[in-house]
Amino acid sequence: MALLGIDLGGTKIAAALFAEDGSLLLRETVQLEDRVGSAVGKLVNDCICKYIEEAKRKGIKAASIGISVPGISNINTGTVWAPNIPGWNKYPLLAEIREVTGDIPVVIDSDRACYILGEVWAGNAKGCKDAVFLAVGTGIGAGILVNGEVLRGSNDIAGAIGWMALKKPFEDKYIECGCFEYYASGDGIARAARDFLRTDRSYSGILRGKDPGSINAHDLFTAYEVGDSLAGKVIEQCISFWGMAAANIVSLFNPEKIIFGGGVFGPAEKLIPAIRKEAARWAQPISITRVTFDVSGLKGNAGVYGAGYLALKNLNSFGSSI
Amino acid sequence: MALLGIDLGGTKIAAALFAEDGSLLLRETVQLEDRVGSAVGKLVNDCICKYIEEAKRKGIKAASIGISVPGISNINTGTVWAPNIPGWNKYPLLAEIREVTGDIPVVIDSDRACYILGEVWAGNAKGCKDAVFLAVGTGIGAGILVNGEVLRGSNDIAGAIGWMALKKPFEDKYIECGCFEYYASGDGIARAARDFLRTDRSYSGILRGKDPGSINAHDLFTAYEVGDSLAGKVIEQCISFWGMAAANIVSLFNPEKIIFGGGVFGPAEKLIPAIRKEAARWAQPISITRVTFDVSGLKGNAGVYGAGYLALKNLNSFGSSI
Repeated sequence: MALLGIDLGGTKIAAALFAEDGSLLLRETVQLEDRVGSAVGKLVNDCICKYIEEAKRKGIKAASIGISVPGISNINTGTVWAPNIPGWNKYPLLAEIREVTGDIPVVIDSDRACYILGEVWAGNAKGCKDAVFLAVGTGIGAGILVNGEVLRGSNDIAGAIGWMALKKPFEDKYIECGCFEYYASGDGIARAARDFLRTDRSYSGILRGKDPGSINAHDLFTAYEVGDSLAGKVIEQCISFWGMAAANIVSLFNPEKIIFGGGVFGPAEKLIPAIRKEAARWAQPISITRVTFDVSGLKGNAGVYGAGYLALKNLNSFGSSI
Repeated sequence: MALLGIDLGGTKIAAALFAEDGSLLLRETVQLEDRVGSAVGKLVNDCICKYIEEAKRKGIKAASIGISVPGISNINTGTVWAPNIPGWNKYPLLAEIREVTGDIPVVIDSDRACYILGEVWAGNAKGCKDAVFLAVGTGIGAGILVNGEVLRGSNDIAGAIGWMALKKPFEDKYIECGCFEYYASGDGIARAARDFLRTDRSYSGILRGKDPGSINAHDLFTAYEVGDSLAGKVIEQCISFWGMAAANIVSLFNPEKIIFGGGVFGPAEKLIPAIRKEAARWAQPISITRVTFDVSGLKGNAGVYGAGYLALKNLNSFGSSI
């Protein structure tokens, strides 16, 4: 018996076949290329069909399928809202997948839910019942595990931590993406660098020569490594926001673990001691002593592992949530 | 069959007998007076014994007992930490109560957990599965209901929202009670007024004549009612913090309802539209349209109703959590 996990991202699909204990049997990625709308849905189905066949060829049955999507999965309707895939607004993904999967149970969840599930199954949150995955990439979201279950909220939108208010007063620039995401996402890091470049005329470091429009988070971390003053300012600002956000997670949820993941952690991994130090100033003083800060144990694969675990959990509760 | 709810506060005990449907059969309060340590425990037991007898006299059996405590209840050890009751650090309340209750099941929980349970049972969160009680009194805490269950965290300390980081950079004055509580609790309101009085020499309103040390939140709301400028500044600042905190609850938990309670709501009830307006600027834009802001439907009785509901829930899961 095997579990099929599909992690649909904004640019590619990762598909993997897992054994029940979380060990990886088979894995590949397929680029979305220029697909949009139902062509993306068709590619998901092609992956599923291929892996069901691959499993058969190995003499294993794909017993359950889990799908991670880059947006919000409405559990009741089976539709998906994925802002980075054109045409995916209330996209009827579950109905489409069911056309090709026969009696194999299928469950869809948001990427942030899958990230924390992946870490619990096979990564750095193994055995945890209360843990949070803080995903910092282009945007920011959180997968939150409460007493062993993913926190969904009343409309499946819980964990939208990029909108966290951390710096008063409100400014119009937060309207599009939220205050925390504005300053401390991958995009936010690049934006902060551009803002500092614009205002600090005396700066003559290695980012001065760059076209401001082309600067990205990676450039900042590279400059930070060599002691660049502007990169230092930007990263210090991020540490402060990440620390405050982590503190708020600690005070509200009293988790065993916070996992820092996404493209930014990654290079920001070595900043975790500084983030913890900042969080400790703000957080509930007992809770902060009981929590571990860690990075993803699965790197870019937390989503596909989480999709696999979703498939396993759904199989174990068969009848209640398919 | 009746349920006995006991709400232990910092200055008094409220005891009540409920029918299964949440209707109140009997209620009274007893002052703690100058009791500390085990004398408080003895008073709790006296209340319990008296109510078990009262129920008997009415021909009803007290079938289950719930206790709300002003602090943290450790479910595993049955001990209570209650900072406002001298000597209640790991106080063995459950063991003491069991000495007088025979085979009647007993369960103890924090006041903030009981507040939201009370509202769900008999107040303004009836029927909700995802709801938050924001208790603003001398301090600030939150009772958080997630998918029908109280959020506890890994050490029963979840909901410590008074520690929420909302205004960077960190200042040492937040060390004792947390940033949000520093500015926006009942004590915070009085403190802000004193700070403004000290710095604003031009102010000549009705609070100028007062001894700064004696000013309390009540004085501020009275002054605000008559358009006092200093009170206006203090209350505007609170609205901003309450709005940011509510926004963060909305973005993280995607709840159906936020209930504002505690002594401050109360007089701050009429500020809720302004708080909502501020929250709407910061919060995840879909979640904010799905949430209702309300005040407690039980006023000062949310704790004792919650204790009664705790008793009922424990009875229904008999064997698993007593």
